[in-house]
This record gives sequence, structure tokens and C-alpha cells, in this order.
Amino acid sequence: MNTLIVHAHPEPQSFCTAMKDLAVATLEGAGHAVQVSDLYAMNWNPVASAADFQARSNPDYLVYALEQREAVKAGVIAADIAAELDKLLWADLLILNFPLFWCSLPAMLKGWIDRVLVSGTCYGGLRFYDRGGLAGKRALLSFSLGGQQHMFEDEDAVHGDWEPMLRPLQRGTLAYVGMQVLPPFAAYHVPYVSPEARGVILDQYRDYLLRLESVAPLRFPSLADFDRGLHPLRPEVPA
Amino acid sequence: MNTLIVHAHPEPQSFCTAMKDLAVATLEGAGHAVQVSDLYAMNWNPVASAADFQARSNPDYLVYALEQREAVKAGVIAADIAAELDKLLWADLLILNFPLFWCSLPAMLKGWIDRVLVSGTCYGGLRFYDRGGLAGKRALLSFSLGGQQHMFEDEDAVHGDWEPMLRPLQRGTLAYVGMQVLPPFAAYHVPYVSPEARGVILDQYRDYLLRLESVAPLRFPSLADFDRGLHPLRPEVPA
Repeated sequence: MNTLIVHAHPEPQSFCTAMKDLAVATLEGAGHAVQVSDLYAMNWNPVASAADFQARSNPDYLVYALEQREAVKAGVIAADIAAELDKLLWADLLILNFPLFWCSLPAMLKGWIDRVLVSGTCYGGLRFYDRGGLAGKRALLSFSLGGQQHMFEDEDAVHGDWEPMLRPLQRGTLAYVGMQVLPPFAAYHVPYVSPEARGVILDQYRDYLLRLESVAPLRFPSLADFDRGLHPLRPEVPA
Repeated sequence: MNTLIVHAHPEPQSFCTAMKDLAVATLEGAGHAVQVSDLYAMNWNPVASAADFQARSNPDYLVYALEQREAVKAGVIAADIAAELDKLLWADLLILNFPLFWCSLPAMLKGWIDRVLVSGTCYGGLRFYDRGGLAGKRALLSFSLGGQQHMFEDEDAVHGDWEPMLRPLQRGTLAYVGMQVLPPFAAYHVPYVSPEARGVILDQYRDYLLRLESVAPLRFPSLADFDRGLHPLRPEVPA
């Protein structure tokens, strides 16, 4: 199994970085190949812009997704994007490893999504969800946060359930491009817990990584349940 | 009413830019003061990092939120953040105006959230939701997208309902810091519709902006319904 870990934390000594290092060691130890994109260390550029295309299909008006599609085909996409796209296509498993910023990705990592999940290769037209361009791959969110587990336990919790809170990421992004999304690994309360408690979290993360291959993915819509206009196909109700 | 529009689109001629321009003209025409942060034009830096602090409370280990809190107090936060924070504190209404990228903000705008909604001023400890630091202000998401309205109409729609899809932004961010969140304005199917249809959308947006003051905000949790450990207070059930 080939794994790409995309990691984005502004503090190299962070617990989140330890999670990334543990994932590398654990997966390599189990005989898998691992590549890491450490976005802060790479000084990754997160801003999608006209500068991402060495030549333009329409130089007068930028439709970003359209230029992505054409530029990948023509081999004129920015070199930093091309390198990340190669790693993504190589990978069987994508791990996004990050501190939860505003219940979402740090901008650094959002910009990896914006720039690397290119139209054409990853999705396009009716190629999304179970017909997405990255079907066959698996993905996993692995993140640290200040909050505690009970704050996200169900819809009565103060921040509600994880499913809606992570929906744009797990459904609108990872499942959208066709990946099977594994249940997320959340490292709770990290800034406030003891070194011993942090060790326990790392042990839990190692255990989870070692049994990933038997973990059932989350469920998302299938395009088989929608017509070509993407209206839901409703079962006929007898009169 | 003072309005801050934070706008982020990589194409200056985009429909999304026309929405921003219309909002400026409409609100100023109605006698309100408007400031605009056009993040691409400003070459805004979206990356939260140690460079955001001219002096550090802990130079050896970066806890970003902690340094925000201390740096604002000490007047040593980066000048670009301080300028945006001034605009935010001046505003009664915040409009985030953007193209929907992956059911969320472009990284450019996510980085405005990450860097400008500083700990201490905007939230901290039990100062969130209706006790958030920006209580009294209102906020509005205004965005363009390729998708159509029926794709987000309810939980049976192909992408489900807007409420969960926008939860990290509307609840996890804007409501979290105490703002009253107005129903979002979505400009659907923009890359595919006629100039006439775009005109209709702009008319609808103008109408919406002119009646904003009478629009009921969305509902989010109140901390009065949770104990100090943030567990839900459940009504006693008689035996």
C-alpha cells in the first residue's frame, strides 16, 4: 500500500507533527511505502491563481477549474502542483494530518486541496462521488484539536456531530473525488493534556493505522440513486 | 451600519466580483459605510505562522492562538492582521464574498479567518456562541457556485442540505465568535447561465441586501443550555 501524508502545522515540535511521524514509522514498519508533503516545511503556496498555468486556454478570463483541466493535459500546470499530483496518483491511501482550525483545514492545507485536486483528473461532469476520478483510493482525516470528545458526540453536543461538521471535507471533497473515506482520527484536548495522555492518544492512533485495511469506510451517496439531472430517483409509491 | 466585505476571487472580472461591487454600491446607496478587503488584489498572506508575531510569548514552541492573544494585547501582531482586525471591529456587518471552492472558502479567505479572528478578542474560554467576543455583529456568506439549487435543497439532494455543508463556517466560525449569521446568498450555476440570468441573480442579491435589517438570523446553540463543562443541560424527567 502506498500512502501519501499531507501534513500542515506551523510548529514543527507539535503533537500533530508527532502524529505524522508516528504514521510514517507505523506504516513503513508494516511494509508500506510512504511519502510526506510537509506543507509548512515546503513553504507550499496555498493560493489558487492565474500563476498556476504556464500557458492559458483563455488568457483573458480565468475559469480556474477549466484551466486546471487543460493545463494538466498540456503539461503546463505549475511544477509544484504537478509534483503533488504525481504523489496523489501514486497513493492508495491519502492521510490529511492537521490541527483543526475553525472546524476545518488550516489555509495552508485548504490550498493544497484547491490547487492539487485538479478538474479532469479528479472529477468533472458526472464523474464524482462513486464515479469520481480517484475511485479506488482511500482517505483519512487525522487531526488534533483543543476540544473534548463530548463536545462533538452527537447532534445534542455543543458543536453537534462530526458528520455535519466535517461534511465539506469528507463528503464535499474526499468522497466527491471518489475516494473511500475512513472514519476520522481525532486527537482531543491536546493543548491541555499530560504527556502520558498524549502517549495514550499516540498508541490509539498506531492501533488504528495498523487495522486500517479492515476498517469499513463511511457511507456517502451513490450517483446510481440520482437521475442525469442529479435529482434523486424516488421509488414509485403505489396509489 | 458599517459593513466590511472580505472578497476573494482569482479573476477580477468574475461574476463574484460583480456581486462584491453590487454590494458596495447598494449598501453605500442606502447610506451605509462600506470597507472592502479584496484579498487577491491585496496579495493577502493566508498562512498562519510564527512570522505573525513581532515578539513571542514563548519563542521556543508556537501555540498559535495563545500568541495571538498575547500579541494583540502587546501590540506586536503583524501589521496586515492588525489592519484587518481594525476593520472587523469597526464593522456591524461582515460579508464574506467568494466562489465556493470544495464546498468551503478558497484558501485565501480561509487564511483571513485563521489569522484575523484572533483568540482573546473574538473568543476564548467560555466566550463563544452567544457569549462570543463579536456578539452584536451580523455576518453573511455570499458566494457563487457551479452547482444548481436542487443539488443542495434538502438532505435527500445529491449534496444534502446547506446547513450541514456550511456548518464549519456558519456555526463553527461566524456563530462561534458570537455573530448573528444571516441566511446565505448562493448564486447558483454561474459558469453556465446566460448574461440575462446573471442579471436576475444580481437583482435578487440587491433585493436581499436592501432588506437585510429585517432578516431573521439563523439559529445556533446558546451556552445557557450547557453546563460549565459544556455538557448539555437535560431537562429533568419525572420518574
